Parts: sequence; structure tokens; C-alpha cells
Amino acid sequence: MKNTQTASVMPIHKYRPYNETFAVDLPDRTWPAKTITEAPRWCAVDLRDGNQALIDPMNPERKRIMFDLLVRMGYKEIEIGFPSASQTDFDFVRSLIDENAIPDDVTIQVLTQARESLISRTFESLKGAKQAIVHLYNSTSILQRDVVFRSDRQGIVDLALEGARLCKQYEATIPGTTIYYEYSPESYTGTELDFALEITNQVIEIFEPTPERKVIVNLPATVEMSTPNVYADSIEWMSRRLAHRSNVILSLHPHNDRGTAVAAAELGYLAGADRIEGCLFGNGERTGNVDLVALGINMFTQGIDPQIDFSDLDGVRRTVEYCNQLKVAERHPWAGDLVYTAFSGSHQDAIKKGFEAMEADAASQGVDVDSLLWAVPYLPVDPKDLGRSYEAVIRVNSQSGKGGVAYLLKNDHKLDLPRRLQIEFSGVVQAKTDADGGEVTSDQIWDIFQDEYLPAPSSRAEDRWGRFELTRTSTSSDLTGQTSLAVDLRVGDESRSLVGGGNGPIAAFLDVLGQEGVEVRVFDYVEHALSAGGDALAAAYVECQVEGVTFWGVGIDADISTASLKAVVSAVNRAIRVTGRDRELASA
Amino acid sequence: MKNTQTASVMPIHKYRPYNETFAVDLPDRTWPAKTITEAPRWCAVDLRDGNQALIDPMNPERKRIMFDLLVRMGYKEIEIGFPSASQTDFDFVRSLIDENAIPDDVTIQVLTQARESLISRTFESLKGAKQAIVHLYNSTSILQRDVVFRSDRQGIVDLALEGARLCKQYEATIPGTTIYYEYSPESYTGTELDFALEITNQVIEIFEPTPERKVIVNLPATVEMSTPNVYADSIEWMSRRLAHRSNVILSLHPHNDRGTAVAAAELGYLAGADRIEGCLFGNGERTGNVDLVALGINMFTQGIDPQIDFSDLDGVRRTVEYCNQLKVAERHPWAGDLVYTAFSGSHQDAIKKGFEAMEADAASQGVDVDSLLWAVPYLPVDPKDLGRSYEAVIRVNSQSGKGGVAYLLKNDHKLDLPRRLQIEFSGVVQAKTDADGGEVTSDQIWDIFQDEYLPAPSSRAEDRWGRFELTRTSTSSDLTGQTSLAVDLRVGDESRSLVGGGNGPIAAFLDVLGQEGVEVRVFDYVEHALSAGGDALAAAYVECQVEGVTFWGVGIDADISTASLKAVVSAVNRAIRVTGRDRELASA
Repeated sequence: MKNTQTASVMPIHKYRPYNETFAVDLPDRTWPAKTITEAPRWCAVDLRDGNQALIDPMNPERKRIMFDLLVRMGYKEIEIGFPSASQTDFDFVRSLIDENAIPDDVTIQVLTQARESLISRTFESLKGAKQAIVHLYNSTSILQRDVVFRSDRQGIVDLALEGARLCKQYEATIPGTTIYYEYSPESYTGTELDFALEITNQVIEIFEPTPERKVIVNLPATVEMSTPNVYADSIEWMSRRLAHRSNVILSLHPHNDRGTAVAAAELGYLAGADRIEGCLFGNGERTGNVDLVALGINMFTQGIDPQIDFSDLDGVRRTVEYCNQLKVAERHPWAGDLVYTAFSGSHQDAIKKGFEAMEADAASQGVDVDSLLWAVPYLPVDPKDLGRSYEAVIRVNSQSGKGGVAYLLKNDHKLDLPRRLQIEFSGVVQAKTDADGGEVTSDQIWDIFQDEYLPAPSSRAEDRWGRFELTRTSTSSDLTGQTSLAVDLRVGDESRSLVGGGNGPIAAFLDVLGQEGVEVRVFDYVEHALSAGGDALAAAYVECQVEGVTFWGVGIDADISTASLKAVVSAVNRAIRVTGRDRELASA
Repeated sequence: MKNTQTASVMPIHKYRPYNETFAVDLPDRTWPAKTITEAPRWCAVDLRDGNQALIDPMNPERKRIMFDLLVRMGYKEIEIGFPSASQTDFDFVRSLIDENAIPDDVTIQVLTQARESLISRTFESLKGAKQAIVHLYNSTSILQRDVVFRSDRQGIVDLALEGARLCKQYEATIPGTTIYYEYSPESYTGTELDFALEITNQVIEIFEPTPERKVIVNLPATVEMSTPNVYADSIEWMSRRLAHRSNVILSLHPHNDRGTAVAAAELGYLAGADRIEGCLFGNGERTGNVDLVALGINMFTQGIDPQIDFSDLDGVRRTVEYCNQLKVAERHPWAGDLVYTAFSGSHQDAIKKGFEAMEADAASQGVDVDSLLWAVPYLPVDPKDLGRSYEAVIRVNSQSGKGGVAYLLKNDHKLDLPRRLQIEFSGVVQAKTDADGGEVTSDQIWDIFQDEYLPAPSSRAEDRWGRFELTRTSTSSDLTGQTSLAVDLRVGDESRSLVGGGNGPIAAFLDVLGQEGVEVRVFDYVEHALSAGGDALAAAYVECQVEGVTFWGVGIDADISTASLKAVVSAVNRAIRVTGRDRELASA
């Protein structure tokens, strides 16, 4: 098998591999052998990094709704704005403080650049808060040093150190507020590691962290520039070398340019980080910040408590969509409309069997199904744990198989079709839908099912079809093994009263049909109640050979005996229609 | 800083860590030290795995459009359906073959389960094709063995081997077609590694691969169940142990349940895989298949040819959105509407400087800017390389800074504002937009700019404001350093003819204004043409101190001298409005 791929027109000469400039030498990396065992400290930056990337930034009302949501979900560190850069942000910080909207165990965080006028304004915004994180940043990348700051390394270090010193100085202006510090060498992924280490360690020295007042060092993938293992390597490299490491909280802030921010956060966390900054559903500049929802629920599926409440994920999603005025996509991890949906037959079949096996296990152990380990194929999480219903799990389109169809009939109409009937009916559904395509709703499936198997009793009069219709039955048994049956049967356009006998009502009915010239053998027979209680409807399924061809029939009636006779009528009518015996019998 | 996070309500007892069941022991893993250096073999499965996950599966017309798109982009292996499972798929395979729609260097691939009726139908669908890959799969996971197949390991192995043998047998029915084989132990990520190896190696033996006719072994993350490094470990483990490894093409097929499919594909590729199966924009079951677009463009940004043409990404996106009837989200990697957009001031400022630095570098080297290495902050790729315009790069909202505003004025109106004027004007924009929020369009910025700096000449008559308006100018210079200036000036409601003198027209005009009781000093002065050519308009920017306060003024005129005088008038009018001198002068 030759590989026939050929060179593209893409101008690859404009780009260089990341590792040519930013190689990390870490042959003794330890992170690949580790696993995540507990939640990191989370910091939600929806109100700052997320907000600054919106087409329509949040107004004060939407900001407050977002803040309250984050608090309710369990986030304890929340970056609420860049108060020195925008009057809206400043006013929002003030409103939270002035209205006592910040719970005692929540720490707000505000961003500032390393310039005195901005730092002064930042501390001004925080007056009256119980505690706050002042997040100081300056850009350190090679590219930004060259084209934005036109400065050498020392100039950039001086800027950071001056900023840190000014923070310490302005801290005294709000003595009632406990101030913690976070420092970000912004554009870290475009910074030589040795320089990132140098500038960060110098800033750490100025902040003089202690065990009680640690400093947060945030190493952002401001732009995601390489595979996530490279970011993880850089984090482990830095973690080993940071000054006062035990008094430093190492924080990650991955962006998603390459679509691997979640992986970068997870591998970076394995590599020694303590904290992750991100946004709900991955909002943020360009391709977004890392998605806090994906990270949290990923942990949850491993039996690790994310320490965040995702039990009403749809509610969270609706709120965030309102605040951000951006939709969460259909295939968004854990939250999209389609992520618990199976259209394909084999997936639907397996999901159905998984649900059934769990229910059977629970029943046999005498426990609630929710106490068992979750084990349903193609569903890595129980949608119910996130507040999603099972309704959408199985959806049917023209290319779905029997599993989905059967699931919907069972779920929505309590009909538990025997396996071979599932196969037969899925063929009926496919034949009716293959041509035009599109999703088939549960209602449509029910219509098709009724029209195919239950035309006489359930459909509209004008749509009814079928040569035979049972209008009255009466059985008597002498308990010697013989049952006699009297039926009123519509045959074509006329009504006939007929009697037959056999070892049970079905056999007696076959005798009746034989008298009408229809030879029927019964191969299989299943009946079940549609719900609990004495007056419940029953569903009967019979597999019959009619004139040499096999057909299933279905009957529903409060009388289990009548249901089974109706099922035979159903099979016979279908057989007559398909084999064309209808015309033949009518003309006889 | 205490971590105040607390236990959530999430039912973590229902889940176990992946590695408790599926640990991979690979302490000598080599993949973390590797980097990607060339494109893998790609296989696009949009028409099968993607299609089966659609609410509205593709009809034949949409299928054909998708197939032609994939061919045009450069994909050479294309899974086109599951012909034995759906008449639509069968007919589509036939139509491609019968209509000679498959280029000679493209190999179609069809999926089949390991059952004789399906295998027979599969080969029937392929008759007349030049070559094809028959993709045989059966599910091997612990969970599916238990609840779906109720079979032990040997039963599952027998199923696979029987399927492989049947394939070899039916191959003889279409001797004109070269058949290659792919085997997938489906639900691989839920399968014990030793069993995945056992079944795969036994299947390989049946297919008897040769260097000319290798077999594809596809190891799908049917459900993504762990961090991507674990998948990579498993791939390296398998790659070392696969039978006839040199005659095996090791293929990845990651799904995106945890949001890390792109990472899983990249790390799995580092770990020894040769081939990647995925879908454009990550369509596919649930959270989707791995996104072929993200993978390809990720490589491109490293200077590696993806061997796929992404130069018209918007066109690709529109076509895929039509075929799938699903939108690509705003923040989708490389393709979303917002991924090249910067709303924040500091990002906009840096982007603008990056563009300028590249242009300056190109000019100084005398080369085209497209021959340089791409180096613009916050833009990891040149949007133009993907057929995106720069238009959307800078968008302005109420919280944007000067960079975006300046960029838009330069890009759309050729006005290159001096730095301090940028700062002044961004404050004007922010003041006019902070209250209501929302995005500010380039047209709105231009309206605000005209109203603020150019009210007299450009605005509608009823909106004009300003005490002074220049209606005629005439200068004469005797070349001894003295310029005399005669102007007709509207002052309030009356027109005055005035003369003044100085060492240039601006100085002479300040003299005129002094006679009118307005003291003006000029601090800075910049002028540039708005386009090339002798009759081009010129823009003049002056920074003036008027009555002790500093203001910028802007003037545009075909006469560079008149433009500068208009700029002074602009500054003076603004100053008078702000300081309230208007009323004072009017009442004088």
C-alpha cells in the first residue's frame, strides 16, 4: 500500500518547529508515569480573560450572574476583572465589595500590568474586600520583547520588579484587605525557559512568600505553540527550579490554539502544577482558555471529586450562554447536545444492553442501580449525574439499527420487543426512512409501529388496513386441556361469528383461521404487562409462519388472552398484505 | 492562602480510575522525547464515522460533495461507508465506482463487522473498484464482551479470525480489485492490552501482510477514557509487540470524549503510529472523532507539510457545514469565526506592532513579507495562509484599547495616528461605548473619529460643530524664513478675512488665532499622505496646547499646508468645546 500523499501548496517556509527555539531538556521527566489523584486549586477567569474575548462583553448584570454561578458551583478563586483598564471592570469590583456579594471563603482576583498608574488604580478598586489576589503580569516572550517593548531581558526584568515593588507599596493603602500575589510571565510559551525562570524567581524574592502567604506563579500558554507534552516538560522543569518552591503555588493557564488545552492542563498538572486557571466551556481569547468543565468532569469520570458541582450542567450551560452570548457547540465535551446521543445501530444496541445489565445486576444484588459502578458502553459517564436525561441518549435516523428503535419503544411506550422482532421492525423503519434521510423521532417510530402492527385498533379509521379484525372473543376451558373459542371476526367487509378449538386460545384461533383458508403456525410467543397493576394493558408478540413466510404480529389489550389473538391477527394481516393473498382471498 | 475548596455532591463512587483496570507498564517509554517531523498517512472517515453521528445523515448528493472535497484537499484514503449495514451506503459505494469518481491514487475504505452476510455484501459493493481497504472490526472491550456479546476472550478471538478468513475467501469474488485489509479491535481503550495484542496478532497472521501489501492495524479510542499520555503509552507498547511490525501500518482513531483527541493523536503518533483516522472539524459520534483540520494545521504551524490543502479553510468549512448540517463553533481551532480576533487592547496593540515589524523587516531586506518567518504576537499562524482575511483580526468592543482602534483606522481609512493621539482617541471611543457595551464596528469608529476631529468638512451639516472653520487660505513665502498667511475664517456665525505671519504656515496661523483671542502652542506635528501619487490627500496631526490644555487635532486636505491648518482648527475647536471657552468667546 503505497502512501500516495503529495506535497501541498501550504507555505511551510514561513514557520519553524517550536523545539528549534524552545527545546526543554528533561530526559528524566517524571510526569508521564503519574496519574491525577485529586482536584487542583481552580481559578475561574471567565470575568476577565473570558470576558475580554467576547463580541459583546458582559454588562454589569451579566457579570453578576456569572460571578454568582461560579460561586454556586464551588469556585473559590475568581478573577473578576482588569479594573485599571476599564471603568466597567472597576465599577464591577466595587459593586461586589460594596454589596457584600463575595462569600468569606471566596477570594477575588484582579489583573494588572506593571505600571504605577494601573497598580494604584487596582488597589483603589479593592478597598474594603476581605482578601484579594493581585495578579501582576508583563510579557516576557522573545517576540514581544522585540516588537512590542523593544527592550532587552534586563529591561523586562526591571519592569516586573518595579511592578512587584509598587504592589508591595500600594498594599499599605488598603490595610484592611489581605493581599495575595500572583505573577505571570505573560507569553510564557514564547519565552526562553531560562529567562522565564530568572524573571519569575526575582519576582518571587520581592514578594517574600511564606507558608501562610504563598505566592502564585502562573505560567500561561498565552498562545498554545506545541504539543501538550512539551508544555508539561516545561512545567516540570520550572517546578524543580522555582525559588521558595514550597511557598509557591504553581498555576497553569493554557489557551487552546492547537485544540489541546485540556491535555496541556492535565499533563502540566501531572508535571507538578498546583492550580489551573480557565473558563467554563473554554471561552476566552481566540480558540479559548482551557475548559474548566471538561477538566472537572474528566476527573469526575475517574472517581476523583472535582470539588465543583456539575450536577446541573444544562443549567450551567444556559447561564453561561446567556452571559457570554455564545452557544456551546453540539459536540462540546460533556455539555454539547449530541455528546450522549447514539444514532448508530451497534452503539444503540450496546447501550441498551448496558442499561439492562446494570439493572439486572442491581436487582440481583438487591441494591439501587446508582450504587453500582457505571458500566454502559459508549457512555463514559452517566448523563444523569450531570443532570442530563436519558431521553436524548438514543436517537434514531435513517441509518440507525434495531437497538435505537427498540430502546425508544421501550422507553416511551413500554414495549419490550423480542430480539427478532426488533430486527424485523428496524428493517421496516429503515425502509420508510432511507429515502429521505433525517432524524426519526420517537413519535414517528410509534406511528410507523402502529401502522405496521396495530392498524385496526389504534390508527385513524381512514388509515386502517388488514383483512381480519377481531371484534369479540369468548373462550371456555373445561380444564382438561381443551379450550373452545368463539370469535366475531370482520373478514374483509363482512362480519362472521366463528368457533374453534385447541389446547389454548391461540391454538383455537389458528383453528378458526384455518376454517377461513389461512394456514398459520406459531413459532414464538412473548407477552408482558405494559405497567404494574391488575388492570394494566398487556402486549403480546407472536412469530408466525403464514403461508410459508415468517412474520411477527403484535397485539395490545387489557385481556392477555385477547392480546395474543390480536397479535396473531396482526401477523396474518401483514403476511396477507405482503404476499398478495389479500386480492386472492378477496376474489375467492 | 488556604485552599477552601470543599467536597462536591457529585457521585464519585460510581467511577474508578482508568489505570486501576488498564495500567500500561512502560517505564522506558520513548515518545515524550520525540517531535513530529512529517505528516502521517491520513484517513478521512467523515462519510462513515462522521456520517453515522449526524442528526441528518448525508443524502447521496451531500455524500458526493463531501467525497469530492476530501479528494480535492489531498486525502488519499477515505472511508466511504458501511455498505452492508445501509442501502444508502451500499448505493453510494456503487455510484462512486460506477461513475468513475475515484481517482487512481485514492483508496476507498469500507467498514464491516465480522459476519459472513455482511462480509459478502461488502465485497459485492466493491466490485469494479481499482483498489479498496476492507476494514474489519469487532468489539473487544471487557464491558462489551460481558454485556453485549456475553462471550469469553476465545469467543471474541474466534469471531475476529473467522471474519478475517471470510474476507480472504470473498476477496476471490472480485479479482479485478486490489484489496487491502484493516483490522480494528473496536473499543480498544476498554480492552486489556494483552488481549488487544493477542487478538490483533492472530488476525495479522491470517492476513499474511507483505511489504507490498501491508495490513492496517487500527487501535481506536472508541471512547476516550484517560489522559492522552496513557493512550500514547499503550500505542508504544503495542507498536513494540505487533507481529510483522514492518508490514503493519499502525493506525490511530481517537474519539474526543474528554476533549483531548487531538493530543491523543499527536502523542500516539509520536509513540510509533503511522496513520491517523479522523473527521474534518472533529465531527463524529458523541464528542466527535479527532479533528483532521486541527491536526493538519498544527503541523503546518511547525513548518511541516500536512500534505493537505488548507489554503481555503473557509470554503472547506462552508462545504462541511452544508454536508453535516452542523455549524463549526466560533472558537473551533483554526477555523472558528473568532480564533483570529483580538478584542483586548494589549493584544491588538501587540498584533499591530507585529505586522508593522514584519513589514519593516521585509522593506529593509528588500523582500516580500511572505518570504519572512511569521512573527506576530497572539497569531500563531498567518490567517492569510488559510484563506482568512485580516479584516476580522482586530475587532473592537467597549473594552478594547488603543491598538485595535488605531489598527482599524489605519486599515480601513489609511490614517496612521501618532501614538499619543491613539491613546487620546481610544479614550474617546471608550467613553462613547463603555455604557452600552457590545462590539464597535469599524464604521462606528470612523463616525466617532469624524465627529470628534473632523466635524466641519465631513459630517452632515446639522451635526457640525466648532467655533472656527477655515474657508480659504493663501500663503506666500519670500524664502527668507517668513511666511505670510491670509485666511477666510468662519468665527461663530460670521466670516472674517484675516492675515498673519510666522516662520511657516502653522506659525502664521497661530498668529491669526492669537488675534482672535485664542492662545495656541504646537507640541507635535505629523503629516502623511493617505495614498501614493501627487494628488493624494494628506492627513495632518497636531498636538496643541490651547488655553493651557493639550489636545490633538486632525486635518485632511489635498494641500498639505491646508491639512495642517485644519488640524490646528480641529484641536482648537475641541479645546474650546471642552473648556467651555465657546460660550465665553461667544459672549465676548
